[in-house]
Amino acid sequence: MAAEQDPEARAAARPLLTDLYQATMALGYWRAGRARDAAEFELFFRRCPFGGAFALAAGLRDCVRFLRAFRLRDADVQFLASVLPPDTDPAFFEHLRALDCSEVTVRALPEGSLAFPGVPLLQVSGPLLVVQLLETPLLCLVSYASLVATNAARLRLIAGPEKRLLEMGLRRAQGPDGGLTASTYSYLGGPPIPPPSSPGFDSSSNVLAGQLRGVPVAGTLAHSFVTSFSGSEVPPDPMLAPAAGEGPGVDLAAKAQVWLEQVCAHLGLGVQEPHPGERAAFVAYALAFPRAFQGLLDTYSVWRSGLPNFLAVALALGELGYRAVGVRLDSGDLLQQAQEIRKVFRAAAAQFQVPWLESVLIVVSNNIDEEALARLAQEGSEVNVIGIGTSVVTCPQQPSLGGVYKLVAVGGQPRMKLTEDPEKQTLPGSKAAFRLLGSDGSPLMDMLQLAEEPVPQAGQELRVWPPGAQEPCTVRPAQVEPLLRLCLQQGQLCEPLPSLAESRALAQLSLSRLSPEHRRLRSPAQYQVVLSERLQALVNSLCAGQSP
Amino acid sequence: MAAEQDPEARAAARPLLTDLYQATMALGYWRAGRARDAAEFELFFRRCPFGGAFALAAGLRDCVRFLRAFRLRDADVQFLASVLPPDTDPAFFEHLRALDCSEVTVRALPEGSLAFPGVPLLQVSGPLLVVQLLETPLLCLVSYASLVATNAARLRLIAGPEKRLLEMGLRRAQGPDGGLTASTYSYLGGPPIPPPSSPGFDSSSNVLAGQLRGVPVAGTLAHSFVTSFSGSEVPPDPMLAPAAGEGPGVDLAAKAQVWLEQVCAHLGLGVQEPHPGERAAFVAYALAFPRAFQGLLDTYSVWRSGLPNFLAVALALGELGYRAVGVRLDSGDLLQQAQEIRKVFRAAAAQFQVPWLESVLIVVSNNIDEEALARLAQEGSEVNVIGIGTSVVTCPQQPSLGGVYKLVAVGGQPRMKLTEDPEKQTLPGSKAAFRLLGSDGSPLMDMLQLAEEPVPQAGQELRVWPPGAQEPCTVRPAQVEPLLRLCLQQGQLCEPLPSLAESRALAQLSLSRLSPEHRRLRSPAQYQVVLSERLQALVNSLCAGQSP
Repeated sequence: MAAEQDPEARAAARPLLTDLYQATMALGYWRAGRARDAAEFELFFRRCPFGGAFALAAGLRDCVRFLRAFRLRDADVQFLASVLPPDTDPAFFEHLRALDCSEVTVRALPEGSLAFPGVPLLQVSGPLLVVQLLETPLLCLVSYASLVATNAARLRLIAGPEKRLLEMGLRRAQGPDGGLTASTYSYLGGPPIPPPSSPGFDSSSNVLAGQLRGVPVAGTLAHSFVTSFSGSEVPPDPMLAPAAGEGPGVDLAAKAQVWLEQVCAHLGLGVQEPHPGERAAFVAYALAFPRAFQGLLDTYSVWRSGLPNFLAVALALGELGYRAVGVRLDSGDLLQQAQEIRKVFRAAAAQFQVPWLESVLIVVSNNIDEEALARLAQEGSEVNVIGIGTSVVTCPQQPSLGGVYKLVAVGGQPRMKLTEDPEKQTLPGSKAAFRLLGSDGSPLMDMLQLAEEPVPQAGQELRVWPPGAQEPCTVRPAQVEPLLRLCLQQGQLCEPLPSLAESRALAQLSLSRLSPEHRRLRSPAQYQVVLSERLQALVNSLCAGQSP
Repeated sequence: MAAEQDPEARAAARPLLTDLYQATMALGYWRAGRARDAAEFELFFRRCPFGGAFALAAGLRDCVRFLRAFRLRDADVQFLASVLPPDTDPAFFEHLRALDCSEVTVRALPEGSLAFPGVPLLQVSGPLLVVQLLETPLLCLVSYASLVATNAARLRLIAGPEKRLLEMGLRRAQGPDGGLTASTYSYLGGPPIPPPSSPGFDSSSNVLAGQLRGVPVAGTLAHSFVTSFSGSEVPPDPMLAPAAGEGPGVDLAAKAQVWLEQVCAHLGLGVQEPHPGERAAFVAYALAFPRAFQGLLDTYSVWRSGLPNFLAVALALGELGYRAVGVRLDSGDLLQQAQEIRKVFRAAAAQFQVPWLESVLIVVSNNIDEEALARLAQEGSEVNVIGIGTSVVTCPQQPSLGGVYKLVAVGGQPRMKLTEDPEKQTLPGSKAAFRLLGSDGSPLMDMLQLAEEPVPQAGQELRVWPPGAQEPCTVRPAQVEPLLRLCLQQGQLCEPLPSLAESRALAQLSLSRLSPEHRRLRSPAQYQVVLSERLQALVNSLCAGQSP
């Protein structure tokens, strides 16, 4: 996608978007003569978000973009010099000036993969000083992307396959590219549903996500458009040509006024009740979008103004061969109103002999969270499209994934943080990760082992250690999938990154294979991540040897 | 600040960072001949965040930067053309290409002001099409900045004036410039405490916020630095010169080893118990930062390893005339450990006759929320510095301010959204806003009135309407402060924007004047925002006239 080459699109993260302690540690490593020691870090999370049992990996494309452009500019080095001790050896700053990621190798869970606690989303190896500096930006880029993709997948699971979901949270996002990230990865979040239903969110209101990331964009109109019209405005060209392109144009406002009388008579309303400014706004919108006319119904009163005005304009358009596409509701009891509006559409379709009116889309929005979504998606709901903002973008149930980036090896030797808090212990050593699958293709558990161990074979019995277990257990996987793909090798991209659509398809496939119990939104049954016998033995020996 | 001129610093928001419906409405306005109608919007929020009774206004500097650079590039217009109907009049796109904010005027609450529900943070006037397009980016820039500034002010209120607060949430932020915004505005969030205590957060770990925004940066070291050392490493230069700069250097590691024996004897530990790699890491850090040595204590075991290793290195440094500055704890019961560590410091200070050891800073971190902070800040706590990440940056109690941007006037005529949901009604007309103060200078209430009304005078009795009241009430303010300042006039900056430090001072002053009941974190007593009689009359007449 050409837009991806846009230099501005690459500026989201840059080297100084990091914690100061990365720079102080860099000086410490350098002073100790260890800047170029070979090191490996793993980026992972400790618990699945939102009380569920799965997460989706995302953010890799942003990491790759960041790593390939990584270079400290002169101004960056000067700023670091201003906050480090004044007597720091100038050779350190020369070292910083020459840094890039040309010696950095990254293995990663592809975007859209299922991710589980302790399984690396990224393995980053390279010179100790450089890979330490990468910690904060990589965490910043991966954690939120994965969180919002997971959140979107949950919302899709609740909505089911039929409802269209529109992400519209940019205005509520925590910063501009929080919004861009959210719009991108809420589109990625794919559900376990078969085609032709759309996976993830269907579209976003965020134009920049469309331009830079190829996310389909959608939008209707706001209350301000409606209130901006009083009804006394005279459009420069009030005429609309028929849809077929033949025959004379008609004055759409005049035509709508004629229909209004019939609509009001049908609905039992006085013809003065519907707000003339709202009708003028609908006519103006219809003149601009005759093939995509939508009405926002709740500016003044849905029943006495929005709905009759919409019907008048829609029927006027219909006479010219156009079909209105939708109405939007942004307040009140959305489900109840949708049911009643559908009844009105059906009755009007019969009354005025315009069958297409029955199936005009009903779009709803207004602080929709998981609970409200479940109600709107229930059997028999007449809602067609659901716009979600704050709940998808800010992830209010858990606004941070809590990703961490931990050193696992230096100079080929395993490293481990022991601490007195068992949850904060790390798993030492350079590792490989495999997904063990049952005969039906569903994931049984993920296994971590040391990188040098032989790859486990399908059909063979394996002895593995569940976390905290006193004894190993055995498993005989029908299939074994390696999880981590070589993404950057010595700074070079190893294969083209999948497109967002491809990642979305992977998310859909991944979730479709997950067992129903692990797909639940509140899952007491956590998916197991186990250790190979050798990895468990290494943990034991380091605990015994290092722990005083 | 020169760094503010950095072109990259300005790229956070750009014109297409908007909802598609802004573009569809733009076409609607244009088709209706109304693109250049004079319009005014107000940006405000409906409820104070976090269950409190105040908010701080922030984000204005980002808005000004965005507005002054606002211009659609060719690629932007082409993208819009690709998502609007194919038969759209090309003249519309010519209109877009020529857009800028040279006819836009903005009045605003200065950054660091107290903000209350319904009082505009921004009043934006200009051609209808342009000011409509600005809705989403302005909301995105103001809402999160104000939310995080308010959140930081609350955390400072809990922490009290003595504790130093370090913002360290970049890795947990919702996107890269979510992190930048958070670091900037958590520094702004000022508390009602007298100098010399620092207002707001004292510093941030975010280097970019230091470089671009002038926020003081701070940092220590991570567990990875500690685990990267095994103890067998040999630094290229193990020697450290005395602090006074005179006399021969000494081998710091060897000196620390000598001290370790004394420390272990004092603490009743075996000299083999402290981890040699951790000690090597501390020595390496001390060699790089002899005047700013800090130890991270909980990589292996605080009591049997981190603390004795820290003391050994600190005492070795002390012999050379340097004073260690701090220790950090990142797990376990932070308050309890701090109390015990302080006891150890006092005993060791006496034992080894180094009084400065008593006052080494104790820095704590680890998912500190409002509740945990209150405990750490309690009377007698030995904690000195508190690092807060997720809780300040993601605002988990309420991750979105819920700001809105509503049309209040077109062509000088007031506009109002009525709707059937009373909370979503808007206040019509171009307005002025005043803060009415008591004789002690504390704010009594904010008053909104129509722009053309005379400015209320101090000492005069005013009749005002509280929200939803059946009768007006009277108030006689001792002082009256206009709230909104002219910021951009016809696209031109009217006065230099205050520096971040000046905004921070205003936040401090603002909060210090707020009554204790409105400063409470959970406040049943909401601060009142009232309407002038004429504004209330306008609301009444529009409700009567427009509501069918």
